[in-house]
Amino acid sequence: MGKEPTAAAAVTSADVARLAGVSRATVSFVLNNTQAHRVSATTRARVLAAAQQLGYVPHAAARSLRAGRSNLVLMPASVSAVGSLVSAWIDDLQSELEQHGYVTVLHAGRFSDPVSAARAWAELRPAAVLALDGDSLTDQAADVLGRAGVRGVLAFASHDVKGVHTIGFDHARVGALAAEHLVSRGRRNIGVIMPRERGLATFARPRLAGAQQVAARSTAAAVTAVEMSYTHESAAELAGHWRESGLDGVFAYNDDYAALLLHALRNKGVTVPGDVAVVGADDLVLAALQQPPLTTVRLDLPTPAQVADALHELVDRGVPPEVPGMEPVLVHRQSS
Amino acid sequence: MGKEPTAAAAVTSADVARLAGVSRATVSFVLNNTQAHRVSATTRARVLAAAQQLGYVPHAAARSLRAGRSNLVLMPASVSAVGSLVSAWIDDLQSELEQHGYVTVLHAGRFSDPVSAARAWAELRPAAVLALDGDSLTDQAADVLGRAGVRGVLAFASHDVKGVHTIGFDHARVGALAAEHLVSRGRRNIGVIMPRERGLATFARPRLAGAQQVAARSTAAAVTAVEMSYTHESAAELAGHWRESGLDGVFAYNDDYAALLLHALRNKGVTVPGDVAVVGADDLVLAALQQPPLTTVRLDLPTPAQVADALHELVDRGVPPEVPGMEPVLVHRQSS
Repeated sequence: MGKEPTAAAAVTSADVARLAGVSRATVSFVLNNTQAHRVSATTRARVLAAAQQLGYVPHAAARSLRAGRSNLVLMPASVSAVGSLVSAWIDDLQSELEQHGYVTVLHAGRFSDPVSAARAWAELRPAAVLALDGDSLTDQAADVLGRAGVRGVLAFASHDVKGVHTIGFDHARVGALAAEHLVSRGRRNIGVIMPRERGLATFARPRLAGAQQVAARSTAAAVTAVEMSYTHESAAELAGHWRESGLDGVFAYNDDYAALLLHALRNKGVTVPGDVAVVGADDLVLAALQQPPLTTVRLDLPTPAQVADALHELVDRGVPPEVPGMEPVLVHRQSS
Repeated sequence: MGKEPTAAAAVTSADVARLAGVSRATVSFVLNNTQAHRVSATTRARVLAAAQQLGYVPHAAARSLRAGRSNLVLMPASVSAVGSLVSAWIDDLQSELEQHGYVTVLHAGRFSDPVSAARAWAELRPAAVLALDGDSLTDQAADVLGRAGVRGVLAFASHDVKGVHTIGFDHARVGALAAEHLVSRGRRNIGVIMPRERGLATFARPRLAGAQQVAARSTAAAVTAVEMSYTHESAAELAGHWRESGLDGVFAYNDDYAALLLHALRNKGVTVPGDVAVVGADDLVLAALQQPPLTTVRLDLPTPAQVADALHELVDRGVPPEVPGMEPVLVHRQSS
């Protein structure tokens, strides 16, 4: 495709070899600390000096060989799907992992299937993969990671996956708890908000399914999925047709969507909880600030230290200690 | 250190070599597509078949050699520092980059100095580094990246850095705009909220400095830094002592802190904007939902497509097109 520029400034191990007057293989033996090959102390010193002089940074993969392992923990996640709830939690987790000597990267690639995803992650040769959305992992994906030397896969998931150490996280329980609460408050026609924003369907679908299971067990309650975008326009449109919908309760996916919907309902003269009871999720700081203060489902996660310790044990010994799963807890306030 | 477990399942290029009945060097020549070495078509096919059979995933670094470059874009950032404002923007940017064939990773490592950071990033051999906080980069750090073959560094920054292509992003302008507005509304004792949360000082300090510059130019206005944590307790404590502080205007760092402070002030009977005018930043969806609706500073960013195109040009040709910098715009609502 025409003139491909060369990365003129890039220093390679060949440059180090040239300056040190040794073969590239010798450079590799020294920098990767390969014990199988004898390299004299003088040669070793010459290679290290040349690498230093040229500012040669070894590949992470080479460094992992040198140290016996990679120090990279890979988390597959997009930034916005992480959400306000877990962003501080992830920060704390990363600090805990740092104390164990790991560096965390968030991998934002989206893939058509779990094995393609695993292959892309494997290319970075992480020591471990920590998945927030473990339900999209498969045993084939875990196998790809294992063959690439990934020492452990830890995942929040609602079910077991072969080759993956799971921490219980069942989104269906979140939806079920919200629906049970609304039914207990005498609501019969329950809407469940399905965000149109990308990346949230993975969490929204099982929440809806959980609410539907509650309705299926009840003789009186029905559940309806209601699409909404996180915009003033979408919330206003929904609120404008609320009375026609006949919905007397709504589980609004999370507190952000709930706050936006509360405001739009108030603007259209729909009273909360009089006309409709509203339940959010996450118990964000803003939940208690709403008018009326928002009923929500709090998600009690294991502590970052628990997860970091488990990950380290997994990398170190292949078996992590048991980590308590996520527990959803209903926090009742005035919106329901 | 006792029994160090071997990563028994890990497949290496040595396994591929053994199965194919060739040397490890030949495997490397084939998988890295090194043109300098002649490998027969039969041998090449045997190596590829063995790699396939064993499920061998090449290193990202090897793949980058094969393709002539890495496809990795590294963004140094913690998840929570990214904030609500830019998380959707980053998602869109990642989609745009994906269309150019790149994969984005967020690198959460924290380092004592810019060169240590650059060395850690360089180990992953990214094609490019995209820094949201370019003010913490130095020319030495850029040099480390260049020597590791990173083809370009693009950064949001308030000043030029040698070896870095910058997109203007001046947090001082955000603070100055908020302070100018408060002064124009007749406020004289202006508080500037400094979040205690980790990672935000980088953005909060220049915002404070911008407000202080406005006060220094004015004969009548004074600026006071006010620490606050993003908790109900911290906001309530601050609001409880508000009258004693004598502050009649406050720039609350961003809309999240502003919303929390507004609520706490109302609970303590401090009226907004009567007793104190409040200004946020980011113009989040929640800003217009506040009571009173929140005056804020909207940060107009270049589009994700503009930034993705620039990054691709930078990797491809070494020189990106000019990208318009961030423009802060005051959005006046009823809180001031």
